[in-house]
Amino acid sequence: MSKKDKPFRPKARRPRGFEDKPPSVLQAERALLRAASAVYERWGFEPLETPAFEYADALGKFLPDEERPNEGVFALQDDDEQWMALRYDLTAPLARYVAENYDALPKPFRRYQLGTVWRNEKPGPGRFRQFVQCDADTVGAPGPAADAEMIAIAAEIMEAAGLKRGEYVVKLNDRRLLDGVLEELGVPATKEGAQRRLRVLRAIDKLDRLGPDGVRALLGEGRKDESGDFTEGAKLAPAEVDAVLGVLGAAESGGGREATIAILEERLFRTEAACAGLAALIEIDRTLAAMGLGDDRAVVDPTIVRGLGYYTGPVFEADLKLDIESDDGQRVRVGSVGGGGRYDDLVARFRGQETPATGFSFGVSRFAAALRLAGRTAAEGASDLVVVLALEPERTGDYFALAGALREAGLRAEVYLGGGKNMGKQLKYADRRGAAIAVLVGPDERAADQVTVKDLARGAELSKGITSRDEWVATRPAQETIKREDLISWVRSALSKS
Amino acid sequence: MSKKDKPFRPKARRPRGFEDKPPSVLQAERALLRAASAVYERWGFEPLETPAFEYADALGKFLPDEERPNEGVFALQDDDEQWMALRYDLTAPLARYVAENYDALPKPFRRYQLGTVWRNEKPGPGRFRQFVQCDADTVGAPGPAADAEMIAIAAEIMEAAGLKRGEYVVKLNDRRLLDGVLEELGVPATKEGAQRRLRVLRAIDKLDRLGPDGVRALLGEGRKDESGDFTEGAKLAPAEVDAVLGVLGAAESGGGREATIAILEERLFRTEAACAGLAALIEIDRTLAAMGLGDDRAVVDPTIVRGLGYYTGPVFEADLKLDIESDDGQRVRVGSVGGGGRYDDLVARFRGQETPATGFSFGVSRFAAALRLAGRTAAEGASDLVVVLALEPERTGDYFALAGALREAGLRAEVYLGGGKNMGKQLKYADRRGAAIAVLVGPDERAADQVTVKDLARGAELSKGITSRDEWVATRPAQETIKREDLISWVRSALSKS
Repeated sequence: MSKKDKPFRPKARRPRGFEDKPPSVLQAERALLRAASAVYERWGFEPLETPAFEYADALGKFLPDEERPNEGVFALQDDDEQWMALRYDLTAPLARYVAENYDALPKPFRRYQLGTVWRNEKPGPGRFRQFVQCDADTVGAPGPAADAEMIAIAAEIMEAAGLKRGEYVVKLNDRRLLDGVLEELGVPATKEGAQRRLRVLRAIDKLDRLGPDGVRALLGEGRKDESGDFTEGAKLAPAEVDAVLGVLGAAESGGGREATIAILEERLFRTEAACAGLAALIEIDRTLAAMGLGDDRAVVDPTIVRGLGYYTGPVFEADLKLDIESDDGQRVRVGSVGGGGRYDDLVARFRGQETPATGFSFGVSRFAAALRLAGRTAAEGASDLVVVLALEPERTGDYFALAGALREAGLRAEVYLGGGKNMGKQLKYADRRGAAIAVLVGPDERAADQVTVKDLARGAELSKGITSRDEWVATRPAQETIKREDLISWVRSALSKS
Repeated sequence: MSKKDKPFRPKARRPRGFEDKPPSVLQAERALLRAASAVYERWGFEPLETPAFEYADALGKFLPDEERPNEGVFALQDDDEQWMALRYDLTAPLARYVAENYDALPKPFRRYQLGTVWRNEKPGPGRFRQFVQCDADTVGAPGPAADAEMIAIAAEIMEAAGLKRGEYVVKLNDRRLLDGVLEELGVPATKEGAQRRLRVLRAIDKLDRLGPDGVRALLGEGRKDESGDFTEGAKLAPAEVDAVLGVLGAAESGGGREATIAILEERLFRTEAACAGLAALIEIDRTLAAMGLGDDRAVVDPTIVRGLGYYTGPVFEADLKLDIESDDGQRVRVGSVGGGGRYDDLVARFRGQETPATGFSFGVSRFAAALRLAGRTAAEGASDLVVVLALEPERTGDYFALAGALREAGLRAEVYLGGGKNMGKQLKYADRRGAAIAVLVGPDERAADQVTVKDLARGAELSKGITSRDEWVATRPAQETIKREDLISWVRSALSKS
């Protein structure tokens, strides 16, 4: 349209650590979000949507990976010099929302939110910097009943997503058990001590990935990883590490919630914090039992601590007990697809008054991907798409009318819009789209008020037994010419067979 | 839990220009997205989701508001110094996606996308910097049939959203008509000329807001707005401004597509560009007619140019012909809720080869808000929430079992989790939640295997006739004690009456 002086040509590429989602991924995520939303609604939670940006000071610094610039978030400065950051979860924005609208909200305030979050992590294979979460939270409910409810909702969502009993488990712990141990071991409850406690929690959070020896090293002097990078340890003495690992091992026997709690009662130091944590676990267990959630669905597991800095007591994790195939063909256990806990101080950061809160967050992208890889999503099903070929481009209006009639009958139909009259090219397009049926109208058909229909899936099947082109042309597998008025019933019948 | 040295207390506030969406807004947007998705799927479009970030060079500079820093986008630098920006629409990322995956895609490639976009505009009342769009695009279809399809899909979505014929219209134009006029007026097709042409287009794009006099000023020397800011004009001579306004006025008679095209044929200069534009309009009109889209649903309107820089030919706009109440109580016409057009050069930016493309984008937030304000969304309906009061906190497990039985029967039910035994406070909570029914179980009810149920809506209605507290206590409007086994049928019956 105009002569250009040396046009700039950008390279077409995604930013590192970001992905494009194709239909199969999107459909799995949407199905999961629909199932979860229905559960939240049934339990009396209202939807809410906060914006992608928050002021950086409102988000706070609670991410596990403190070593990254900007503490792991994507941040930028607004015109008025204020720092804004993309949310890294849906909990910190909820705390801001509740504090901002406190007087207008019913208390307890119960909301769910589906949304995208961003983390400025080092990009790598399979490590994405944008993902979808869905969360339910209850703000203003101090008691363990609200925590028990979070666990019950998580279990119900696992089943709504298509999992059977035994294929998932929700794990429960209370961070105060370990606080008690550390207090007894002389890690003081000061700001400097809090740093060390957090280091212990984060070491334990890596148990799945690093195994007991790795955690032992991180609790002690530190650990060098395969790349040679050294991570500073929590500097506990060997006997102290044993005490911590003893508490962590309380669920190893694989007993039910009551049995694990009994072992914990033996091994724990009787500090105020530990007793408060234990009392919460006992109360949550009791409430879960009254709700009918047995040991097959929810267990006590002291190794669960969760990575985020803001949890103050009970913490939860939802695990998939399904194996999926990893990139290198190994069967691997999926593990955690969500988690949460009580965060009584997060709203208080704004308000200056304690405002108890608890919540549960699913990693939708990860959860949906695991269900898909484990073959637990609804079969993607035969295509139901009809492609109307446009063999005489000047008659496109007629083809649109034909496709429109199919759509009005509730079917999916499109007209080939690539131009030209090449039938082979148009049929190849229908194949690449995975269409079920192609509809052809040439001059002969039009004159006789007919259409030619081709069942593409059955045609491909039948073609396998054909060895020569002549034979193919003579038999024209799964193709026939019918009256135009019979088109819709023919298509319906062909789709019902596939 | 720990003494802190002077804790930092952030102020709880949203970043400027961003909003929190309450349930009523979310439900309207979700309903619209569901309706639109169903239409796209029926027409043979596949879902796709690209990430929020793109490299800044891939997004290009096509936004109408060129005066802002970063050209109106939110941008930041990645670790490796590359500039990334949040997408300002869903079209530029699609162009990147198609160019990146060109060989693997069926051609034409047809996708739809629902998603959030961000624009770094000056925040102001009702002017948000984050909103939701839904788009359909066809890449690789050169002919006007693909444009006609976009118009037909837009019209179908307007009706799927609940609008009747006559309450909306899709407007159609071709930018090349004006290109032809400007060429004839001596605005050259060079880079500098392109700048001036864009200035003319953007002046015309403001016709709705500024009226003919404002546009006349912007086409000429320039315009000073109410705040005293001066906007540079396109520097056309008065006679040239008249020629442009003559073409713009072709639809003023309010005739159908054919009538407007006939007037255009008279008034247009016969340049190559204008003739190509006119031919496209004629072909699109013919295809729309074959699809059954009459003048009541799609019109030709030469004042439609759209603000984005990348359109190369046909442009479209979807208008709502509904009045809504503005903030100051005036009835105002909604106008545009979406638009689109052909952008044959956008994929070519990456590939270096022409790749024709056309698309249509709805502003979901704006469209849903207009439907809601015009009272055209499904009535928000009576609440169906049941709140089980927790009058004896130590029996919370029982209350959960009761609520669980209601949920298993398909109802929405929650337990009050705010703690304490204050019945008045708990009933007030149920009221604030807009609950339909409250369920009470105290010692008497439990002993007799009964429950007390209260129809909150009917209770509020009956209470209006009651003047004294004694009378209220004596009559206890809309409250009764029933057998526990009758609870579900009682609730169903009460909900069906409301």
